[in-house]
Amino acid sequence: LPVDFNERSIAIVGTGLIGGSIGLGLRSRGYSGEIVAFDRPEISARARARGAADTVADSLEAACRDASVVILATPVGDIIGLLPQVARCAAPGAVITDTGSTKTRIFETARHSFSLPTVGGSPRAEASSHDARADVAFVGGHPMAGRESGGIEHAGPDLFAGRRWLLLDETLGGAPSARGRIERLVRSLGAEPILLDAEEHDRRMALVSHLPQLLSSTLAAMLDDPADRDAAALAGPGLADMLRLAHSPYDVWRDILLTNSDEIERALERFQQRLEEVRLQLRTRETQRLFETARRVHDRLPRGS
Amino acid sequence: LPVDFNERSIAIVGTGLIGGSIGLGLRSRGYSGEIVAFDRPEISARARARGAADTVADSLEAACRDASVVILATPVGDIIGLLPQVARCAAPGAVITDTGSTKTRIFETARHSFSLPTVGGSPRAEASSHDARADVAFVGGHPMAGRESGGIEHAGPDLFAGRRWLLLDETLGGAPSARGRIERLVRSLGAEPILLDAEEHDRRMALVSHLPQLLSSTLAAMLDDPADRDAAALAGPGLADMLRLAHSPYDVWRDILLTNSDEIERALERFQQRLEEVRLQLRTRETQRLFETARRVHDRLPRGS
Repeated sequence: LPVDFNERSIAIVGTGLIGGSIGLGLRSRGYSGEIVAFDRPEISARARARGAADTVADSLEAACRDASVVILATPVGDIIGLLPQVARCAAPGAVITDTGSTKTRIFETARHSFSLPTVGGSPRAEASSHDARADVAFVGGHPMAGRESGGIEHAGPDLFAGRRWLLLDETLGGAPSARGRIERLVRSLGAEPILLDAEEHDRRMALVSHLPQLLSSTLAAMLDDPADRDAAALAGPGLADMLRLAHSPYDVWRDILLTNSDEIERALERFQQRLEEVRLQLRTRETQRLFETARRVHDRLPRGS
Repeated sequence: LPVDFNERSIAIVGTGLIGGSIGLGLRSRGYSGEIVAFDRPEISARARARGAADTVADSLEAACRDASVVILATPVGDIIGLLPQVARCAAPGAVITDTGSTKTRIFETARHSFSLPTVGGSPRAEASSHDARADVAFVGGHPMAGRESGGIEHAGPDLFAGRRWLLLDETLGGAPSARGRIERLVRSLGAEPILLDAEEHDRRMALVSHLPQLLSSTLAAMLDDPADRDAAALAGPGLADMLRLAHSPYDVWRDILLTNSDEIERALERFQQRLEEVRLQLRTRETQRLFETARRVHDRLPRGS
């Protein structure tokens, strides 16, 4: 894949699994600009040692100073906390993007941080009162990739290859070219950009990511009852599949659950209602329909997922 | 692994994935006795062509006539239907076993078919009224192995290697050596025999196999709603894990659900209660505990499952 990503310098803020893999992926595909890392010193040093960055910045300001693209690849809560600072220190013309797993709260924070118009608000009045940065842009993103284990040691150049990478269809501020620059970043990493809005993103993720995570965690936690430990010891490959997500660390999930609670509750309610129907219909022919529908949905899943 | 299985002739009734793999596994490990297959003619012919059997019987009676071990490897409903016939035609000294995924109903049927004493009943009176076969034994079994796809074409000699194979701790009829002969069969296939009673088996399977199956099917079926199809298209590896079981064919599950409905309903109720708690506590610190407990259970799962 030819790299069509010619930014002079990028900053990766947060060089764990995702940020580290972005650096390694760009480098392995021939990106020749500079990559600056910012994270806790021991993390960014490891990222540089692995080749995911050229230099390590000792502050967010130093990381952003010369970067034409700033990538926030920290947990969602940190992205929300960092956005106002990034809005202040980003270089003119820079595009800021992020890799957070929920988007509505990040998008709201970005809108506020960059003093950009809210729906129904008066852009000029608000901008002038907030020291607007119309010269930088924010393009929210979410790569649909991950591994069971996080951290720079699990990062790799092909983490995003063949994966989808959701981008918010509304760019905040900057030149009209801003989103195209992030799309080139995404394609350079072998991923496919998909545009949608923040609320639709969070609604879909509640269904296909957050609900499955909670089902796996709930099933696993239920089998912790002492009376059930002998049962869990009989686990076959089916249960192992269903409990794979139960390995996910709370660190990663805390912010996701906090920033998408409404949609997650709705998804849980819908699932609960369906499961109640399944239980009540267990001894009827409806069960056949359940299995046939389920199989059809399974067989429609995107390949390689 | 040395084969310590010296039955002169075995009959495999049902030569799909499980029955076929038993034949292939015994043969590949040097079993030198005869293997007779009985199934629909086109299935048993394919089993013989693959080397899973030496000869094909054209009736259950013909298959059982000379077999010292009869293995019923059909769906649960067929096992229940076949047991009375097998009880009539099995050769003296034969041990009958099965591979059904639920055990209580099969065990009850076997007890009745072989006219063996029920708890509190009078063995002699019952036996004399039913033409008892005290010269044959029944040892119920359930290999904890499977594949996403069934059928003789997916059978293989190592399907059971390293897997557990549950055996009922109560042998019906026959000599005291009967269970040992089935344990040798199981070990010859590379599996580990685990003894438990039929009701405990079904309770545990409801939790670690039947409940997970229904959760996967329910989640998949829920994503069939037209409004959610775009969401399902964003599936990552986590959802794919959670929906892998949704591929299971209803053919296999119908009998399992019918013969273990009580335990499955109990398991569903327990899960529903847990999930309701998870939803109500979503915005509290209890969620941290959920994830930590879930991760511990995940990490305790048997290796290779």
